[in-house]
Amino acid sequence: MTETNQFLSEVISMSICYLNGTYVPLREACLPVTDLAIQRGIGVFDSLRTYGRRPFALTPHLERFFASAEQVHMTPPLSMDELRRIIREGISRMDGDSEVLVRPYLTGGDENRNGTFPSPRLFVLFEPVRRFDDRCYQDGVALLPLPQPRPHPSVKTIDYLAPSVAKGGRAEFFEALYCPDGEITEAASSSVFLAIEGVLVTAPLSRVLSSITRQVVLTLARESGFSVEERTPRLEELRIAQECFLASSMKEVMPVIRIGNILVGNGRPGPATRRLHHLFLQNVERWLD
Amino acid sequence: MTETNQFLSEVISMSICYLNGTYVPLREACLPVTDLAIQRGIGVFDSLRTYGRRPFALTPHLERFFASAEQVHMTPPLSMDELRRIIREGISRMDGDSEVLVRPYLTGGDENRNGTFPSPRLFVLFEPVRRFDDRCYQDGVALLPLPQPRPHPSVKTIDYLAPSVAKGGRAEFFEALYCPDGEITEAASSSVFLAIEGVLVTAPLSRVLSSITRQVVLTLARESGFSVEERTPRLEELRIAQECFLASSMKEVMPVIRIGNILVGNGRPGPATRRLHHLFLQNVERWLD
Repeated sequence: MTETNQFLSEVISMSICYLNGTYVPLREACLPVTDLAIQRGIGVFDSLRTYGRRPFALTPHLERFFASAEQVHMTPPLSMDELRRIIREGISRMDGDSEVLVRPYLTGGDENRNGTFPSPRLFVLFEPVRRFDDRCYQDGVALLPLPQPRPHPSVKTIDYLAPSVAKGGRAEFFEALYCPDGEITEAASSSVFLAIEGVLVTAPLSRVLSSITRQVVLTLARESGFSVEERTPRLEELRIAQECFLASSMKEVMPVIRIGNILVGNGRPGPATRRLHHLFLQNVERWLD
Repeated sequence: MTETNQFLSEVISMSICYLNGTYVPLREACLPVTDLAIQRGIGVFDSLRTYGRRPFALTPHLERFFASAEQVHMTPPLSMDELRRIIREGISRMDGDSEVLVRPYLTGGDENRNGTFPSPRLFVLFEPVRRFDDRCYQDGVALLPLPQPRPHPSVKTIDYLAPSVAKGGRAEFFEALYCPDGEITEAASSSVFLAIEGVLVTAPLSRVLSSITRQVVLTLARESGFSVEERTPRLEELRIAQECFLASSMKEVMPVIRIGNILVGNGRPGPATRRLHHLFLQNVERWLD
């Protein structure tokens, strides 16, 4: 067993899954191969974590999950309040005291009725939070630009094939970055911010997923006196940008120091990124449910 | 139970799945929720059928399946000859005498190593062929044009979310048609041919999946004296096209009489389509393995 395999195996052994009305060890949770997530890529999900075992921004995540489902013509088989209870109970059932990553999924089920899915399947994964390597925060990471848009940018779909194919084994790239027509929109599973001449720039919600962390960072930045613009920066602007960072539930605020071959600023994490990550951690409590 | 559900249920009860080295009833075949097909849409497949219980163009389908896997950085856990034996045995294990739809799948497995998948999962579905309604062939079908390209056109991926979302319950459209920048490339799961001023036109392999049925139709058309052009027709050319049809393993040759709001020709299936479907059925034997 390789080191990666063993690590994966340990994480899986500590994880549980809510499926068909009960909580089971993650190893025992499976879906029929007839499910349209497997056969046709039909599925949406969401991803949130705990701090001090309390879920961060639970309601916005639930709202986004239900909105994702609606946009692909699926209706979750329970209410938002029922899912909220299931998530709270799942967190409390996790052994140990590590923080919990919670991911509800809704898959197409077995029946496709002209692009609607009358019998979707719901499951929720509860896993220990896996911290990213400290070096990602100390040294920053590199992104791989893709020339196309993310399909269905307003939906958190399970479709990550394009960024995966583009990476194709290249460990130097932390994540792919969707840059349709040279416009920087969002990374495969993160929002992206640039600091350009003292202004924090990030793509508007009309072009990207309604990221919860993006919204938190925007709120904190505005409260702290940052100038903010919601527009789609062009790749050429990287030449005058001082900083770039990713924002997501799991990454929080993570510095980016290179996009493709282009170094951002001086190629080191910058003060705005560090300040916003610090502000984020200081203010986590405000978004705990 | 609705009529659709009951039909689905009957088909599933007659089907089997090769998984983890054995053949099981389809109802019992499942994948762990940790599989990256479910979590991240990582998967490829292929689809072929039998005539007289003999597989049609088995070798080209196997070659395409292995080529799809390679392009998304997965290696099937067996050789092409082993998969061939598994498929032949699966066909022979199917009860009754109905023709068999065979679909091998390769999914990402549990481990994502920077966009490569060292432990992919393989399974093969064996189901009774479900015939399309005769009216599809008698009256022709309508397609729904989409403005984007199919992602990874050279790979048969499991990603059908975009055409599904676009249909969104509208039964009037049989299938979505990818028309990036107004160019007609391919339908969601079929090749597309137009007959324009006596010439049969279909997109070149540089733009579309290497469809086996497309190749068979091109061979038969050339042998029968049709003029053929492999180029990407524009949507505007529908106004001067006499006929349009889909080609795929399951549809064989199926007339298209409308694309979006535009009627093709006189809005009725035409003689070239009928002739090519007839030629296809007459020549099936040549491609049986």
